Amino acid sequence: MSDSLQERLLSEIESWTLIDPHTHIDPLAPAGTTLADILGYHYYTELAHSAGMDRASIEEPDIDPRERVRRLVEHLRPLENTIQYDWLIGLSRQFFGFTHDRLTVENWEELYEAALAKMSEPDWADQVLRQSRLTAVFLTNDFDDPLEGFDTSVYIPCLRTDDLVFHLAQPEVQQRLGEATGGEAASANGLREAVRKLFEHFTAKGAKACAISLPPDFTPAPVSEARADRALEQLYQRHTSASEADRRAGSKFVFWTLAEFCREFGLPFDLMIGVNRRVYEAGVYQGQDLFDSRVSLIQYKELFNAFPDVRFPVSVLASVTNQELVSYAWIFPNVITHGHWWYSNTPPYIEFDLAARLEAVPQTKQVGYYSDMYKLEFGWPKFQMYRRLLAKVLAERFVLDRGWSEERAIELARAVLRDNVETVFGVQQS
Amino acid sequence: MSDSLQERLLSEIESWTLIDPHTHIDPLAPAGTTLADILGYHYYTELAHSAGMDRASIEEPDIDPRERVRRLVEHLRPLENTIQYDWLIGLSRQFFGFTHDRLTVENWEELYEAALAKMSEPDWADQVLRQSRLTAVFLTNDFDDPLEGFDTSVYIPCLRTDDLVFHLAQPEVQQRLGEATGGEAASANGLREAVRKLFEHFTAKGAKACAISLPPDFTPAPVSEARADRALEQLYQRHTSASEADRRAGSKFVFWTLAEFCREFGLPFDLMIGVNRRVYEAGVYQGQDLFDSRVSLIQYKELFNAFPDVRFPVSVLASVTNQELVSYAWIFPNVITHGHWWYSNTPPYIEFDLAARLEAVPQTKQVGYYSDMYKLEFGWPKFQMYRRLLAKVLAERFVLDRGWSEERAIELARAVLRDNVETVFGVQQS
Amino acid sequence: MSDSLQERLLSEIESWTLIDPHTHIDPLAPAGTTLADILGYHYYTELAHSAGMDRASIEEPDIDPRERVRRLVEHLRPLENTIQYDWLIGLSRQFFGFTHDRLTVENWEELYEAALAKMSEPDWADQVLRQSRLTAVFLTNDFDDPLEGFDTSVYIPCLRTDDLVFHLAQPEVQQRLGEATGGEAASANGLREAVRKLFEHFTAKGAKACAISLPPDFTPAPVSEARADRALEQLYQRHTSASEADRRAGSKFVFWTLAEFCREFGLPFDLMIGVNRRVYEAGVYQGQDLFDSRVSLIQYKELFNAFPDVRFPVSVLASVTNQELVSYAWIFPNVITHGHWWYSNTPPYIEFDLAARLEAVPQTKQVGYYSDMYKLEFGWPKFQMYRRLLAKVLAERFVLDRGWSEERAIELARAVLRDNVETVFGVQQS
Repeated sequence: MSDSLQERLLSEIESWTLIDPHTHIDPLAPAGTTLADILGYHYYTELAHSAGMDRASIEEPDIDPRERVRRLVEHLRPLENTIQYDWLIGLSRQFFGFTHDRLTVENWEELYEAALAKMSEPDWADQVLRQSRLTAVFLTNDFDDPLEGFDTSVYIPCLRTDDLVFHLAQPEVQQRLGEATGGEAASANGLREAVRKLFEHFTAKGAKACAISLPPDFTPAPVSEARADRALEQLYQRHTSASEADRRAGSKFVFWTLAEFCREFGLPFDLMIGVNRRVYEAGVYQGQDLFDSRVSLIQYKELFNAFPDVRFPVSVLASVTNQELVSYAWIFPNVITHGHWWYSNTPPYIEFDLAARLEAVPQTKQVGYYSDMYKLEFGWPKFQMYRRLLAKVLAERFVLDRGWSEERAIELARAVLRDNVETVFGVQQS
Repeated sequence: MSDSLQERLLSEIESWTLIDPHTHIDPLAPAGTTLADILGYHYYTELAHSAGMDRASIEEPDIDPRERVRRLVEHLRPLENTIQYDWLIGLSRQFFGFTHDRLTVENWEELYEAALAKMSEPDWADQVLRQSRLTAVFLTNDFDDPLEGFDTSVYIPCLRTDDLVFHLAQPEVQQRLGEATGGEAASANGLREAVRKLFEHFTAKGAKACAISLPPDFTPAPVSEARADRALEQLYQRHTSASEADRRAGSKFVFWTLAEFCREFGLPFDLMIGVNRRVYEAGVYQGQDLFDSRVSLIQYKELFNAFPDVRFPVSVLASVTNQELVSYAWIFPNVITHGHWWYSNTPPYIEFDLAARLEAVPQTKQVGYYSDMYKLEFGWPKFQMYRRLLAKVLAERFVLDRGWSEERAIELARAVLRDNVETVFGVQQS
Repeated sequence: MSDSLQERLLSEIESWTLIDPHTHIDPLAPAGTTLADILGYHYYTELAHSAGMDRASIEEPDIDPRERVRRLVEHLRPLENTIQYDWLIGLSRQFFGFTHDRLTVENWEELYEAALAKMSEPDWADQVLRQSRLTAVFLTNDFDDPLEGFDTSVYIPCLRTDDLVFHLAQPEVQQRLGEATGGEAASANGLREAVRKLFEHFTAKGAKACAISLPPDFTPAPVSEARADRALEQLYQRHTSASEADRRAGSKFVFWTLAEFCREFGLPFDLMIGVNRRVYEAGVYQGQDLFDSRVSLIQYKELFNAFPDVRFPVSVLASVTNQELVSYAWIFPNVITHGHWWYSNTPPYIEFDLAARLEAVPQTKQVGYYSDMYKLEFGWPKFQMYRRLLAKVLAERFVLDRGWSEERAIELARAVLRDNVETVFGVQQS
């Protein structure tokens, strides 16, 4: 393949400003303050831990950021092959003038200082957004987030609902829900009214999506009013000692109710399908979850049929589920392919899954990428990885294999990477 | 890679006449009569529907073909990236002198007229076959098809058995079977005699295969005579209100009986494994089926062992099942890889699945491709897509990676694409 | 891509001496004595059988080796496309001066004689090792192997435990265990003491791993002492007519006990996950096993958590399980990716699975390849296939796509292919 063809496509694709439709950014502290915020990303801690680093040495309370970085850098050598390491070097060069290919015990202090200087500038977050060509990023907000103190046109709220669906038995969640909504959710009606208040609050603050991550064994289904009443009563009385059956009925009812409010309030419902939580309990913070690839979108058949008016941007954790996602998005008007999630967010899986989507899902129904980042500095290298792969797939499979013009390939890239975010989520670039 | 190498291989591969071993062609109306027969293919209606087109607007009764095309063309824009759209443009250029890259509201009438003129020529179907280098195509015949009025050496009958295996509880199917065979299948013996008559009729008319599509949860197994008697009696008495257990026993018995007759009559038994029917019931005609990729060929262990003399050309709906197919075909003499079916019939999946087959399944046991088409015009672009990918895989993985001569690569292509159809199905190019 | 880049990488990679961390070599007869030992490899017999060769004609007792080869050669034509055939031609050219691209009825005798001459040289096995640049190979030893009569620094013992875990109900296995350990394993304690003796024997002889292959439905879990006592008592009393429940409890207890001794003795525990035995019972010797790709590493969650100090080099039979393997190795410190096993040991799967590992698993936690060979002659062509693919993936995805230097790519190759074998298994190149 002509490398210059791919470079020409990439160069065009790089020029666009974008909205990032899923991140974990804290809008009150969107960018890093020291390099520890970068190296503390779970990818580095979990990979370093997996390669032999002691958990305590990074999770010890009150470690000074500089010391934390020093310890981590000592354990980066085994990770140097990973794409996650590539993001690290990429952002260090992009934002902090780093000139090396590797971050080592010899050169980390130089980077630490450079990062500190930049991160200390008062408009650092805005600088990062600008240099990353991001005009806005979606957040992941707890249901009881006040959503105050930030510009919601740049930091777009998104109602995250895992706690409501899967942890409502916990007294702490019940209390938070009570405080946030002023009501008690110990009945179907009570839950419904509480959720309505959340949707009112979030949409008033400009929320553009409701989102949830789901374990492989979850199958959404409606629950009768009577069954829901009984289940919720038990969750509020017996908490986590409620029966498995009641907890499951409760989860299904809350989930279905969320879909009903997504319909009523016109919010897309992001489904992130396939994660098993706390598989490796001795793992580092955020480095404990894995998956079972034996999951099927047939589990969502009833949901997709029941809510034709709700848009479901769907992410799958296992690449082997991607063909189902492609096929369901090709058939169901309300199913949209959404990004490349977590364990599938590495080049070989992105490349294969992306190619499958580009050749079979209507171009208006693909939201190409989101960064999933916790700090703004990661947006650029993650999107850059995706842009490179998008240019590669378009060059090979569309321009060379199918004889498309470069202009036409670029139009497709633009739909997938930029325009569809706006149409699917109803947002606009400022 | 040298593009000219791939082109040289493709050019040779394109020169062969072929038999298409699986289609849904109606031999009494094999080609289109207007462009509506082309654009009405479920791929276009379901993709357009998925991208937002109203179902009613295409399924309204008595729409004039021209109006139907006009409405669909308005909704093609979101599909322009898909490989299915490529087939459409490809056949329009190949058969109708279309010169554009896109079919739009500006240029569709020109194509409509050109197609109408060609399709009105009395020998149009033969022209399409000739231009497509197809000497014969397999049909998909209902069990009660009279198989009359056409040349069975060009339109080769194939006994499709989904109705018998999965819908025998329906009064209408029972009646059709009764009328076709003159007997009642309300007992094991009765069913056996009825099926024998079907096989006699079909083989007398030159049928070369028995075929069926199967849901992911089906596991063939023999059923005792007594159990079969009981189950069939129930299906004939209680019809679709027969118990799930009886319906399942009935399905298994009919399926096993079909395999027995395939053995007796020397017919290959095409198994198309993995489809869930009517997953999206609000979908357009033929655009409602999807799948659950959690299926395994281990479910067919007993069948493959019990019928060593029956050839089983196997298609799998999910690409993730392809490695099992490769492995089962490498071990079981009676398992043959068969084409790239439906949701796996897009370039990324074909390319990967084909490569896996070419490097591990004996070259005599691979039937490369079938079109699955409903109208003859689709044979050329679908086979052309496959030929292109075949040339690509052979160029990259055999000539370049493994140092094969081009001649040898072409021999392999010929076995897979052409010769094996003849040996596996016992047909010959006229 | 620049082919010369790939060739430069390959040329460097080819220059290293290696240890092969998993084979089925018989250290008392490590190399072939006639070409029949080569062509008798199950890949050729099973593929020839699958392509139509009669099983009897190769499994008839007392066939002369020359006659056996003659018969097989007659049936090789359908296999010429397979990568396994490539190994055959590759080793014939490498070791026996064969100059053809195909082995045919015309030229086989020439090869037979050349092989016979070479294989008759007294130091043939050492010659093969030297020419293959293998300094040592791991064995697969029955638990009652005396491990005598060979140099254990070249032929490294490995305790294979399938019989103990899955066949302890068989009187013959019980007798062998009794003879090997002098005790009776009809109780938890007895079993534990017997296994301890095996570990003492094996480690005294320089064993560097414990290994087992596992069916898709196996889920390791601890078993209480009382339950284990009851189960083992039943296995010793009722043998294979013990209940399914007792047999399963026995398997789990033995397996868990093996993991405990791996911890105590510091042996890695090779898990080869996913095989169904005797699926095709009419198949040739060693050509009867297949798989069900519906398996998940979540089944090993409890094991991986319970034994943080045991290294688990994990092989998966189905390529669709590879992403789970990548992810579990990225999270769990004790999970190591191990080779490309059996039905996944063909170029398209190796290439895809390898790429996924290289971009996401710490470079210290990947054991790139093992040959799984039964005769030393196969080490060279199998490793050569892997080296070629390793060079290809590194050239495309690291040097070209990610801008790595060739030197850095070669360092990664060296870790994966060579160094990690030493660190993971605690062996050293002599």
